Amino acid sequence: MSELNATHDPALRSWVESANAPGNDFPVQNLPFAVFLRAGSAEPFRAGVAIGDAVLDLGALQPLGLLAGQAAEALSLCAQPVLNALMAAGPEASSALRAALSVALRSGSALEARLRPLLVPQSASEFRVAAAIGDFTDFYASIHHATAVGRLFRPDQPLLPNYKWVPIAYHARASSVRISGEPFIRPHGQLMPPGAVRPQLAPTRRLDYELELGIFIGAGNAPGMRVPLAQAERHVFGVCLLNDWSARDVQAWEYQPLGPFLAKNFATTVSPWVVTLEALAPFRVPWARPADEPAPLAYLDDAAQRRAGAIDIQLEAWIDTERMRAQGQPPQRLSHSSFRDSWWTIAQMVTHHTVNGCNLEPGDLLGSGTQSGPTPAAAGSLLELTAGGRAPLALADGESRAFLEDRDRVILRGWCERAPYVRIGFGEAAATVVPALPT
Amino acid sequence: MSELNATHDPALRSWVESANAPGNDFPVQNLPFAVFLRAGSAEPFRAGVAIGDAVLDLGALQPLGLLAGQAAEALSLCAQPVLNALMAAGPEASSALRAALSVALRSGSALEARLRPLLVPQSASEFRVAAAIGDFTDFYASIHHATAVGRLFRPDQPLLPNYKWVPIAYHARASSVRISGEPFIRPHGQLMPPGAVRPQLAPTRRLDYELELGIFIGAGNAPGMRVPLAQAERHVFGVCLLNDWSARDVQAWEYQPLGPFLAKNFATTVSPWVVTLEALAPFRVPWARPADEPAPLAYLDDAAQRRAGAIDIQLEAWIDTERMRAQGQPPQRLSHSSFRDSWWTIAQMVTHHTVNGCNLEPGDLLGSGTQSGPTPAAAGSLLELTAGGRAPLALADGESRAFLEDRDRVILRGWCERAPYVRIGFGEAAATVVPALPT
Repeated sequence: MSELNATHDPALRSWVESANAPGNDFPVQNLPFAVFLRAGSAEPFRAGVAIGDAVLDLGALQPLGLLAGQAAEALSLCAQPVLNALMAAGPEASSALRAALSVALRSGSALEARLRPLLVPQSASEFRVAAAIGDFTDFYASIHHATAVGRLFRPDQPLLPNYKWVPIAYHARASSVRISGEPFIRPHGQLMPPGAVRPQLAPTRRLDYELELGIFIGAGNAPGMRVPLAQAERHVFGVCLLNDWSARDVQAWEYQPLGPFLAKNFATTVSPWVVTLEALAPFRVPWARPADEPAPLAYLDDAAQRRAGAIDIQLEAWIDTERMRAQGQPPQRLSHSSFRDSWWTIAQMVTHHTVNGCNLEPGDLLGSGTQSGPTPAAAGSLLELTAGGRAPLALADGESRAFLEDRDRVILRGWCERAPYVRIGFGEAAATVVPALPT
Repeated sequence: MSELNATHDPALRSWVESANAPGNDFPVQNLPFAVFLRAGSAEPFRAGVAIGDAVLDLGALQPLGLLAGQAAEALSLCAQPVLNALMAAGPEASSALRAALSVALRSGSALEARLRPLLVPQSASEFRVAAAIGDFTDFYASIHHATAVGRLFRPDQPLLPNYKWVPIAYHARASSVRISGEPFIRPHGQLMPPGAVRPQLAPTRRLDYELELGIFIGAGNAPGMRVPLAQAERHVFGVCLLNDWSARDVQAWEYQPLGPFLAKNFATTVSPWVVTLEALAPFRVPWARPADEPAPLAYLDDAAQRRAGAIDIQLEAWIDTERMRAQGQPPQRLSHSSFRDSWWTIAQMVTHHTVNGCNLEPGDLLGSGTQSGPTPAAAGSLLELTAGGRAPLALADGESRAFLEDRDRVILRGWCERAPYVRIGFGEAAATVVPALPT
């Protein structure tokens, strides 16, 4: 687990003025990575780091030879159109680069004049998914979500007997993971309404979002070799926001016995910025089970997890409807939860995933599963917020939603905040629903 | 659907004598693709085509400039260590290359002297998985398997109501797909024996094989755009053998509600040779549903499927135990079924996979699911053959198996045979179980 170091010092300020604005997502204490280019340019995609409202172009920084040692080695992996090589280099590499960039970007840095030309406004940048994702695994780590959804699908047994022991997960689809901003078409699927005798092919009528954290794997593990809990976070590069769009009617009809498939694999939206675990060190909190719950099996439990295995990451989902945009109304918040309420930690997910020898690879993506909190308002999907669609949610101006309508835009946001540390933000993961194609 | 052409002519013979031997897997009418190198050499992996007991080195053929037109263009994609580029080029490209190789390798070819130095014995070759697999999806297309397994997991409802309508599938793990010959370690997992009050971490006691067909995607489809049934086979490059190793005790405890995960993702074994759909044209058979079964929804049904949507591919699984090897006994056959009995065809799987706009990419792998036939002996897994382990299978010399033991080797084989055409073989997919690591 990352310890606090000089990069977390709340007194640090940057010569990039926008990074010092209170409430801004990207102070010099954050320094998340993304893959970007100048929008509309013919340049290749390459790595950048966020600072205030700008991107520092790491591809352009590398040939200047301003960094030394391990930071320079890590920087040499940043001219590529995906972060996989930097991810594969392990936590020492990204940590060394982070430390050097922290020095270079803070107020008074001797490098200011050399670096200023390498800043590109984020608003003038185009992003892509940060890694070539080999495999995408989606967990189900919120017991509040699992219980609420289970109540809808299996009223007699909301939480299955394995839940409290097994970090439940399923393989998801890597090819349809898309970057924030890319719209997607309302999917068709087989629907079997209650009482029907045969299914029909039609656009989903129960389109939903899922508020999740995404976790990018850094260094991989060899086939057959498990990753022990104490080493698990060394295999994690960083985290992002992830919206696991879901067609609930398709899901209800198809999911037994092998799990969700077409209900989920038409699109998954991720935020461009990957926040390193190191940047999140000030926001670690104890991971604990209620006293009346069993401890997990030994391979998923240790003193370090109990001391600081969880992370207090605030997560939000907002909706921006066509009418809101037409009337100049702001988006409206649907969900607000914290990843600290997750039943399983990131390290437990990684260790469980590999306990059978399954090999993780650099750039693999894990989803945390929908992060719903302990209160009804902290539910991370419309399925939960509207009791399976039966109790539509009132929006401003007389609008309401049971599920998502065409041209709705859902925006995920995330951040960490804890005095005396500086607020660390995640940016956003947003996408708009495009009407279905003809059947 | 591929039509018969000059490459299927049963009268064709090759100047590579071993290709003309009766019963051989790789006559000149087959010409499957693989990725290989000379075992022990430092050469790069590149594409090859099987002919008799040899591999024709396509990487070495390309610079000779012996082919012309579309065949030469396709050949130019064969010097790479994966077949993805050739796959992406679509069926016309691989068909043109196949036609040219058929001419070049048949008896009397003027190219014999130029090509003979490019032959490498298969026994002196090392293979790797033919494509960089972006996503691996495993279907569940045998109703006989689904019913038999359902009876064990859900005696009250063996076949779920969706089965006859939905080509059920789940996302599987791409990173752990391994080439035939690579052993794998018996995986650990959470086991919850009947009557236990808490699970334990231990090596699986119910390790099984699954006899499947693998399907490599050729040209992909754009995100959001479905592939209609009539076009579906144009997106398929070819087929191989696939063993979806399964830990049944891990599976029983973990699989609800999101499907199999660690029970399957420790290893999947594929055969090196990818047999093109074109090579299988003589073995097409009508695809039909029993008269008392409902027709599938319109997007999964058309006259071409009913005429020749299925393929009669014989599939077998054999076991080779440590004792058999020590005593010089041959392997013993466990399963024998045909892909013609599959409830869903390859085209239906592709069309269903994309009906929601999910984008398939060149090199993606689909598994057919365990291909069990209508009779008990045609079951494609030990789970079925031993009634969930309750009725161990007697082997020679007093050995028996409920599930696989350490050092057991399972060998999958496949072939097509139908007079007057020449037998087309798939080679084999084999791997050995290595004892578990310490807990």
